[in-house]
Amino acid sequence: MTADDHTALCVLGTGLIGGSLLRAATAAGRTCWGYNRSAPGVAAARTSGFDVSDDLAAVLRRAAEADALIVVAVPMPAVHAMLDAIAEYAPGCALTDVVSVKAPVAAAVRRYGLDARYVGGHPMAGTAESGWQATDAELFRGAAWAVGVDPGTDADVWTRVTRLALDCGAVAVPVTASEHDRAVARISHLPHVLAEALAVAGARGGDLALGLAAGSFRDGTRVAGTAPDLVRAICEPNSEALLAVLDETLTALGEARESLSAQTSLADLTAAGHAARQRYETAERWEITDVFPGAAGWLEKLQEAGRAGGVLTHLPVAPAGDRPVLRPARPGPGSPRRNRRDQR
Amino acid sequence: MTADDHTALCVLGTGLIGGSLLRAATAAGRTCWGYNRSAPGVAAARTSGFDVSDDLAAVLRRAAEADALIVVAVPMPAVHAMLDAIAEYAPGCALTDVVSVKAPVAAAVRRYGLDARYVGGHPMAGTAESGWQATDAELFRGAAWAVGVDPGTDADVWTRVTRLALDCGAVAVPVTASEHDRAVARISHLPHVLAEALAVAGARGGDLALGLAAGSFRDGTRVAGTAPDLVRAICEPNSEALLAVLDETLTALGEARESLSAQTSLADLTAAGHAARQRYETAERWEITDVFPGAAGWLEKLQEAGRAGGVLTHLPVAPAGDRPVLRPARPGPGSPRRNRRDQR
Repeated sequence: MTADDHTALCVLGTGLIGGSLLRAATAAGRTCWGYNRSAPGVAAARTSGFDVSDDLAAVLRRAAEADALIVVAVPMPAVHAMLDAIAEYAPGCALTDVVSVKAPVAAAVRRYGLDARYVGGHPMAGTAESGWQATDAELFRGAAWAVGVDPGTDADVWTRVTRLALDCGAVAVPVTASEHDRAVARISHLPHVLAEALAVAGARGGDLALGLAAGSFRDGTRVAGTAPDLVRAICEPNSEALLAVLDETLTALGEARESLSAQTSLADLTAAGHAARQRYETAERWEITDVFPGAAGWLEKLQEAGRAGGVLTHLPVAPAGDRPVLRPARPGPGSPRRNRRDQR
Repeated sequence: MTADDHTALCVLGTGLIGGSLLRAATAAGRTCWGYNRSAPGVAAARTSGFDVSDDLAAVLRRAAEADALIVVAVPMPAVHAMLDAIAEYAPGCALTDVVSVKAPVAAAVRRYGLDARYVGGHPMAGTAESGWQATDAELFRGAAWAVGVDPGTDADVWTRVTRLALDCGAVAVPVTASEHDRAVARISHLPHVLAEALAVAGARGGDLALGLAAGSFRDGTRVAGTAPDLVRAICEPNSEALLAVLDETLTALGEARESLSAQTSLADLTAAGHAARQRYETAERWEITDVFPGAAGWLEKLQEAGRAGGVLTHLPVAPAGDRPVLRPARPGPGSPRRNRRDQR
């Protein structure tokens, strides 16, 4: 297998996101296998024809042999156990994840000495459903897939992770871990918190209120149908960014409350909210075409482009005279990195 | 035309709700005509083959001649002008409305001396669109349609309004004005306020955040796409009930904030929110079958049934020996009620 032929994919966790990824990447022609901790989860995936096992060590040894890209696709609370095993059985593999926060995963990856070959990822897709039965090869079609561009990012691993996102039908959004976490606090974690609070307020109105509820309540509370543990696993690791935007929103709601009380007016809130929704509805992705992984300043350029709404829809190909020097292939099994987990 | 043949319908306002009502009732075989204040609105409805005019006096005189049920289908700020004209040209007609709040409309109806023949209504349907181009004969199919059961409600008018709701494909939910307004504050007006605040929080994250936004943000902000003036016309007249539930929600969000800050936990909010959403998803309508308009205690029975999630899917038919005495037909043009508007 050459450095340009990174098709093998090892997915740890075959729930909604990991399982859908396994389906999508397989459909794209890649060689994929996976791990799931539960026997029923393994059985469900195998019944669907996928190569999934509950033997984590064996799954990871195969990844090391095949130079596979490993994808951590478990909720944040289970990430450490996965990293522990990766550091033991496949420390040299290229590594990514699809966890809903990026800075806490990056910190954990550093603690296990796996950061040199790690580039975080986060496909912005999902449903209120979970488990293998909810998986869908088309889940990521057209979705944004955040791909890390923090300082020190390895161009080879970045290319592999971006290729995975594109193979799954998504567009890649370059973003640093902390910027990602602040952004998803606004557009994913706050929506969950508000949906829970709205559901509670509606149910307090009893059968009458719930019987009168129509589209605005149905849509506004949809994600409150997500399993509480999963919502917690998504939101709680991002508590710092979530608290900041929650406080901002409590202030905005408090101002609206005062305006409604004093002047019977929601003029400011409705004008700002409508303008914001219009901006969302009319926002257009634009394609990043002139940044080449490994070239001078490539990470800064991608960070800037991502901030401005740029996405990658295919891997950029540098002009022949301008090919960046990619970092050497993965270190061998005896490399020093393998032992860094002993320092954690 | 006999008292049992109330098919004629006069709709004042042919926007999303009034126009859809005109379409639905016409499709149900009823004789319908309407009024719209704007020439383009009239032209659009006429082009679609509907009998709509901008001559309010003529439209209402025709209603008086035909003993039509008049439906006020304008936003709250325009209700007074409609009632003023009704009191002048058709004060004896049965009267309902489809406005988003009920107590303020009932109060205005009383001021114009039109309360004896008024029963409020509110179909729980809509989209973020507005105007004739958004109208749809199927808009009310399966929807809940609140029908007033306040003390003193006229059984004949109540029957007419309930029949209209059923003709449009909705189910009728019996509810008093104040209970309606408190319920919709929870399941319609609060969702609008939270959607506006969420949209603002998302847009403050810039192109990056909006580019990463997926289903939870899209659904949670959908109704922020509604025209700000329409949101204000819906929410502001219900400010008292909305303030109460907004304060309740600010308290709940504040508690969640403290829990997230002190214990990095959203356990309480997510458990309560998920249970509430489950209750909403599993709530089932049950049919009210044993309450006959005009019979002893009928309003109290309907109030109680509505509180418990009961709906009417067809007009109840009393046993032959138990037929209620309906109130006499409408007073003639010279009745005292006609002149009550002079007292306002």
